[in-house]
Amino acid sequence: MDSPTKYHFLKSALTTENTLMHTENFLHWLDEKKKQTHHKTTFIPFSEMENWGFNTTTGNLEHTTGKFFSIEGIYVKTNWGNVSEWSQPIINQPEIGFLGIITKKFNDTLYFLMQAKIEPGNINAVQLSPTLQATKSNYTQVHQGNTPLYLDYFLTERKDVTVLLDQLQSEQGARFLKKRNRNIIVEITGEIEIEEHFCWLTLGQIKDLLQLDNLINMDTRTVISGIPFGDLSTFEGLKKEGNTDLNNFLISELDNSNALHTIEHIISWITRLKSFAELEVERIPLNSISDWVKDDFSIHHKDHKYFSVVAVKVEIGNREVKSWTQPLVKSAQEGIIAFLCKKINGVYHFLVQAKLESGNFDIIELAPTVQCLTGNYRKGQNEYEVEFLDVVLNPEKFNAKVLYNSMQSEEGGRFYQEQNQNMILEVDANFNTEVPEKYCWMTLNQLKDFIKFNNYLNIQSRSLLSAIRFK
Amino acid sequence: MDSPTKYHFLKSALTTENTLMHTENFLHWLDEKKKQTHHKTTFIPFSEMENWGFNTTTGNLEHTTGKFFSIEGIYVKTNWGNVSEWSQPIINQPEIGFLGIITKKFNDTLYFLMQAKIEPGNINAVQLSPTLQATKSNYTQVHQGNTPLYLDYFLTERKDVTVLLDQLQSEQGARFLKKRNRNIIVEITGEIEIEEHFCWLTLGQIKDLLQLDNLINMDTRTVISGIPFGDLSTFEGLKKEGNTDLNNFLISELDNSNALHTIEHIISWITRLKSFAELEVERIPLNSISDWVKDDFSIHHKDHKYFSVVAVKVEIGNREVKSWTQPLVKSAQEGIIAFLCKKINGVYHFLVQAKLESGNFDIIELAPTVQCLTGNYRKGQNEYEVEFLDVVLNPEKFNAKVLYNSMQSEEGGRFYQEQNQNMILEVDANFNTEVPEKYCWMTLNQLKDFIKFNNYLNIQSRSLLSAIRFK
Repeated sequence: MDSPTKYHFLKSALTTENTLMHTENFLHWLDEKKKQTHHKTTFIPFSEMENWGFNTTTGNLEHTTGKFFSIEGIYVKTNWGNVSEWSQPIINQPEIGFLGIITKKFNDTLYFLMQAKIEPGNINAVQLSPTLQATKSNYTQVHQGNTPLYLDYFLTERKDVTVLLDQLQSEQGARFLKKRNRNIIVEITGEIEIEEHFCWLTLGQIKDLLQLDNLINMDTRTVISGIPFGDLSTFEGLKKEGNTDLNNFLISELDNSNALHTIEHIISWITRLKSFAELEVERIPLNSISDWVKDDFSIHHKDHKYFSVVAVKVEIGNREVKSWTQPLVKSAQEGIIAFLCKKINGVYHFLVQAKLESGNFDIIELAPTVQCLTGNYRKGQNEYEVEFLDVVLNPEKFNAKVLYNSMQSEEGGRFYQEQNQNMILEVDANFNTEVPEKYCWMTLNQLKDFIKFNNYLNIQSRSLLSAIRFK
Repeated sequence: MDSPTKYHFLKSALTTENTLMHTENFLHWLDEKKKQTHHKTTFIPFSEMENWGFNTTTGNLEHTTGKFFSIEGIYVKTNWGNVSEWSQPIINQPEIGFLGIITKKFNDTLYFLMQAKIEPGNINAVQLSPTLQATKSNYTQVHQGNTPLYLDYFLTERKDVTVLLDQLQSEQGARFLKKRNRNIIVEITGEIEIEEHFCWLTLGQIKDLLQLDNLINMDTRTVISGIPFGDLSTFEGLKKEGNTDLNNFLISELDNSNALHTIEHIISWITRLKSFAELEVERIPLNSISDWVKDDFSIHHKDHKYFSVVAVKVEIGNREVKSWTQPLVKSAQEGIIAFLCKKINGVYHFLVQAKLESGNFDIIELAPTVQCLTGNYRKGQNEYEVEFLDVVLNPEKFNAKVLYNSMQSEEGGRFYQEQNQNMILEVDANFNTEVPEKYCWMTLNQLKDFIKFNNYLNIQSRSLLSAIRFK
């Protein structure tokens, strides 16, 4: 990427005032969209699903076309962590979908074309999504519906379109079997017609909106998490425009010389862990998984832990109401994801966890310091101890400062009202820099390097990074 | 990696004179080792194998312990290339093995501890291998034999050992199912006892020896291919020591500002190809693959194309002779791998091919411009056209200059006397810089960046890069 692109990304991230639409007006606009739109999601028995059914041999939950996604079983064996083998349902969607954002410069500032989008599982019904969310089934027309809006800007090479970012990134490794999306940002130069549910926001505005609960959807968060801002030289140009304040996050993002570990050291750490980690994942029929129960309305763990698979009827629309049925995954509890960060050599370092999850593409991914989606930790009923959870739950006890704290949703097209508490906390100088084997300190600049080369950071850590503000 | 490490790697690569052992003396030493050692590999019927047999249900060829490796079947479906579906035997060895080199500084120059090693399938019986080649079965003692020599330097953290390089890299995607090795280089400071078949060479000497046929084994080639040499500032320090000549390869290795494409552009190119490539690989019983025939001595394609699986009896040793039986893979023809390179913006750019192979870890890997391991191309009997093969076979017709040309072997522990012609050719200014969709120009500096982040360059392109000399 040429540094003008990084400069414009950073400038957009620092722009929250004098925008095309004031953030407060945007919130009114979004409320209007919500009011105008009918949205109803009802639990139904599996038997009332249309075009979905259980395969008579395998028990897998499939669409009659064999497309979209299916719920299958996996049997997992590993030498990592507290549980050495288990079976579970998993979402299998072996295609690579598009998560795409169109950007355009107005007054030399880059704006992102965002969409107020309803998804069946959404908290708040409407959340802000990328310009385009399209599965391969979408854009190859399995739906028999209309082509997704703006698809053409991403699908074909056009003279008026420049690709600014284009990465393959993973989804939830505990829920999806090796699912990845193509995260892509393009810039256009020509005129473009803005459809009803779309609006232009700066990156800084999107980051401001990420301070609110459940407003920016997961797809937006993953796409913007990969945006590179360059190094300290990128910031030089912005000083002339009155940006003189390098906050701690921005220093960590742009500084590439004061990291505790070299990139090669970190790669060696990952290599060593991958070499000794064993992960065998065997796809098995859904009807042969142990400890899970199927009744008329759900497939759930016998102790009602983890998550369940449910069936819903969805009605969405304003003038014209569309209606369909589909399976959704419903979490048994709320979860928490949190990064601890600490100033080392004058630069914020994030405490990154190497985490093995069953659906991971490459054994382990880089996760937040704390990620427990399924524990009963708030009641002190955890099955096993979660490292560093104490600090996150009792920051004052550890002299930790909460820098970020909000509730954010998982993707509403697959998950039913699932939200996680997203936190970033700063620990003080007394916090031990020596950390257990599966943890490593990295700057934002280094994390961005790993994001660039795909499949390193898991979706939870990307979600947290997306919320980081530079002013 | 701190730049002193890169400096010392580069210095070693530039050192071919006044070494601990003159290269000519090394060749005598190696000849002695060959003469001293008994080595016999005999084809036997499968029925005479000890501890190996065909699974009565699946027909898979397995060791009685279930360890080491097995020959299984895969069924492949893809939308890439000329053949859309096939089944084939494949080597399944789901462990990550060690390929490790110990280095040490003598007179401020880094030396590599190399091993004269016999493998059953080796051409020339003895080839030069890394200090350590160990499968997980090796180092967890499935062999019931001795611990591999020098294993301890790689397995445990030691104060006298620094890790210089530590990468996960792939093996042949057409022959192995997602096999990877841990490529690791360590530096020691203390005294070390040199066992009989080991010797110290500089990286420059190893690269000189790569000009000869079948002397440096594949495992050595893959480990040294990942060595980073830094940027032009690394070279500054070496100028004081009399190294003033930046040859074309070294410029391409160290220059990071004159590349035709940005790294982000190249990642976007890879992302796009991966998004549209479909590769479904299903593991199936060996006895259910189509078009392959099993007789007493081999499993081969009905038209005797591609490769066959054979059984051998191996006798190796000098005073004490060890003997065992095992399967090997035998190629039906010799192959060719070649990089075209061209001076663009004053810097050598390599024409890289995105190649899909059935056993690839992540759909496509970056391959040489030409890689045809199995075609009858020399007789003009190719099943399909191979892009740029003309240039490689008839360089003078295209004004192409042959910069490198040798025969190099595949790993003798799995492959029976398989060798490929390795070539690097320079094309002139008239050669079209516009290339087909699956090809992209990259500098050595960029290729080294991709090697660092694992799983990008296939073993064939790494083999070619390892042979590049900087003086």
